[in-house]
Amino acid sequence: MSRIVMKFGGTSMEDLERIRHAARHIEREVNAGHQVSVVVSAMAGTTNQLVAWCQEASSLHDAREYDAVVSTGEQVSAGLLAIVLQDMGISARSFTGWQVPIKTSDVHSAARIEDIESGLLGKRLDEGQVCVVTGFQGISSANRITTLGRGGSDTSAVALAAAISADRCDIYTDVDGVYTTDPRIAPKAQRLSRISFEEMLEMASLGAKVLQTRSVELAMAQGVRLVVRSSVDDPEAAQVAPDGSNSGVPGTLVCDEDEILEKQIVSGVTLAKAEAKITLRSVKDRPGVAAAVFGALADEQIIVDMIVQNISDDGRQTDITFTVPDAEFDKAMAAITSDKDRFEYDSIAGAKGSAKISVIGVGMRSHAGVAASMFKALSEKGINIQLITTSEIKTSVLIEEEYAELAVRALHTYYGLDKDEA
Amino acid sequence: MSRIVMKFGGTSMEDLERIRHAARHIEREVNAGHQVSVVVSAMAGTTNQLVAWCQEASSLHDAREYDAVVSTGEQVSAGLLAIVLQDMGISARSFTGWQVPIKTSDVHSAARIEDIESGLLGKRLDEGQVCVVTGFQGISSANRITTLGRGGSDTSAVALAAAISADRCDIYTDVDGVYTTDPRIAPKAQRLSRISFEEMLEMASLGAKVLQTRSVELAMAQGVRLVVRSSVDDPEAAQVAPDGSNSGVPGTLVCDEDEILEKQIVSGVTLAKAEAKITLRSVKDRPGVAAAVFGALADEQIIVDMIVQNISDDGRQTDITFTVPDAEFDKAMAAITSDKDRFEYDSIAGAKGSAKISVIGVGMRSHAGVAASMFKALSEKGINIQLITTSEIKTSVLIEEEYAELAVRALHTYYGLDKDEA
Repeated sequence: MSRIVMKFGGTSMEDLERIRHAARHIEREVNAGHQVSVVVSAMAGTTNQLVAWCQEASSLHDAREYDAVVSTGEQVSAGLLAIVLQDMGISARSFTGWQVPIKTSDVHSAARIEDIESGLLGKRLDEGQVCVVTGFQGISSANRITTLGRGGSDTSAVALAAAISADRCDIYTDVDGVYTTDPRIAPKAQRLSRISFEEMLEMASLGAKVLQTRSVELAMAQGVRLVVRSSVDDPEAAQVAPDGSNSGVPGTLVCDEDEILEKQIVSGVTLAKAEAKITLRSVKDRPGVAAAVFGALADEQIIVDMIVQNISDDGRQTDITFTVPDAEFDKAMAAITSDKDRFEYDSIAGAKGSAKISVIGVGMRSHAGVAASMFKALSEKGINIQLITTSEIKTSVLIEEEYAELAVRALHTYYGLDKDEA
Repeated sequence: MSRIVMKFGGTSMEDLERIRHAARHIEREVNAGHQVSVVVSAMAGTTNQLVAWCQEASSLHDAREYDAVVSTGEQVSAGLLAIVLQDMGISARSFTGWQVPIKTSDVHSAARIEDIESGLLGKRLDEGQVCVVTGFQGISSANRITTLGRGGSDTSAVALAAAISADRCDIYTDVDGVYTTDPRIAPKAQRLSRISFEEMLEMASLGAKVLQTRSVELAMAQGVRLVVRSSVDDPEAAQVAPDGSNSGVPGTLVCDEDEILEKQIVSGVTLAKAEAKITLRSVKDRPGVAAAVFGALADEQIIVDMIVQNISDDGRQTDITFTVPDAEFDKAMAAITSDKDRFEYDSIAGAKGSAKISVIGVGMRSHAGVAASMFKALSEKGINIQLITTSEIKTSVLIEEEYAELAVRALHTYYGLDKDEA
């Protein structure tokens, strides 16, 4: 017998038909003898409606009241799922954040989970009851409902799994796992049976929007084994799960690097399009200049992605290049040019329409030359590299957007990720 | 300075425009220096949607989960109203049933309020904050959300008014008070400035659907002064309230009989159409027979209205007549005829299509002959009386439905209730 947490997102809760389908996944785990906690998001569309009402009520709405309003979406879906499970003859009960309780910080609409009291749920699980918990929310020390911010249900699920010492946390979503790259771009992309937390973090923040970054960080810190699975699959199809258990549907296990025996040098190739690059030329090379530039962008809520600064040849001036989303390009240019003297550069140049390609893999740590081989693979296709940044397990390059898909497929093949033809 | 409770129903919370309108009523009371608590229903239509989802989830849904789902409607409207008030510069905060807390019995979907802790709200009111409380709900001793049953928000408002020792409980609705009869039937109907609790109870249960019966009973028991007012009226129009205060819109004060100086013999005339009558002839006149008949109807959830049994002339058999809604007629006939021997009657007769007309007034207690004058007024119009029942402050007759409006207008004029022509 294992204790597991199953998380279902908004599309898996969209209507009663989808809720019944999710319930069959839960039934399978219950029948396998597991103790099951479920974390649910609001029915798809509900949260948007609630947010729209708050905005209609006031453009500067109070975050405490926003949280009270928006948190109702999960209360509804949790109650409906409990009813459906009971209708199938499964003992089930819904719990809100304040009933568990899930204690959070007081930062409304962006609260952090501080503590989950596991006594009540533990008792109910031991009694064989399925506990359906509202995701995305908790309660503050002032007894007010808080929310964790959009996408927070993944984090709720992981935190709950840690609190009740669950053996596994299954995240059911509309894809059936984490792929080596986007299958729409590279049809030979394969589902990874395992991926390390570190790789998943790089994947998540690079656009493979399967898991919320915070939830992966928390799982890594708390040692929670995460499985990404498909809620669309037939719940009763007998298949071997990625952790070797007989828990039905396949998926990708996100786990410690130690659990991955055969480490590939590169596990995945990711793509982010619509990146704009901005270069400041001949910036004075002294402390505070970079802080002024990126401070001005942060003040405008512009998220900067890649930042590259070369060592200056004469020690007096340098070039700084950074990227922002295409949609933020005009705003970013305005922020940097409006009070030009503050930033002490000679000239500025920028353009939209680049793409960032990254190769990710924990194997890079022990294998030299991954970056070099990446540049070689791209040059063989005649693709020019505009910018390069690297981290311990990732190498990213900026290229012209029209070469993006070609680059992804070339690298996918180059690193041996293509699945065998059937 | 007074403490007041203001209650707004679903149509007053229907959308943001209506919520803003309600907020202007609240602003007027705040500006008058009052401490204001507000009790709200869900946005019109929301509760029906939530109920429909529960029914779709399972026709035999668990009442605990039903309450968890359905109670979210008020949480949303309370939060939105708090945001709107804050946007107008008024300090406001929403409170759910469990936050106040409003403690109820464990009977889910039909809970009764047992205790309201007034400490938190009292403190906030003293600080000048408007407290917006979710109607229709509370929390059980098991820490589960309960609901009071449909229409329970009136009861929430009265119970809250009693708990915080409010000077007044204003029920805002889509009519501007209690009328002597339905103005659609008798255009000369007048709004009553005052009505006693007892009369209001007779009015409420007879079809003048302004206030929920339970809320009037509670107000009477707790000595809460209720005012029925219109949420549609212009909040800023300067008018004298029925209790003599300067609280804007007019309405009807529901209060102790002692507070009504000029007692009218008859305060109102009510009408209930679509009543069916059933007569059992030559029923054995001995203990247990009536219990068997009405027990069989209760088992079928049929609500019986009028019951008339004459003293039997020979002490051995009698006739019993009762009324049920037209819609229940076939079911009622089946219940009484299916196992005829149990009920020991000779024959049964019944028909749909009657109407019940009642005249109500606390003045009847001290004035003889009201019933007699009622029969005279009806006979003058050639209207035949089928059944008669009386209580201390009410006389009801059953007549043929097609005479219903004529009878109401005739009695309204007869008892001097017509308003003067302008």
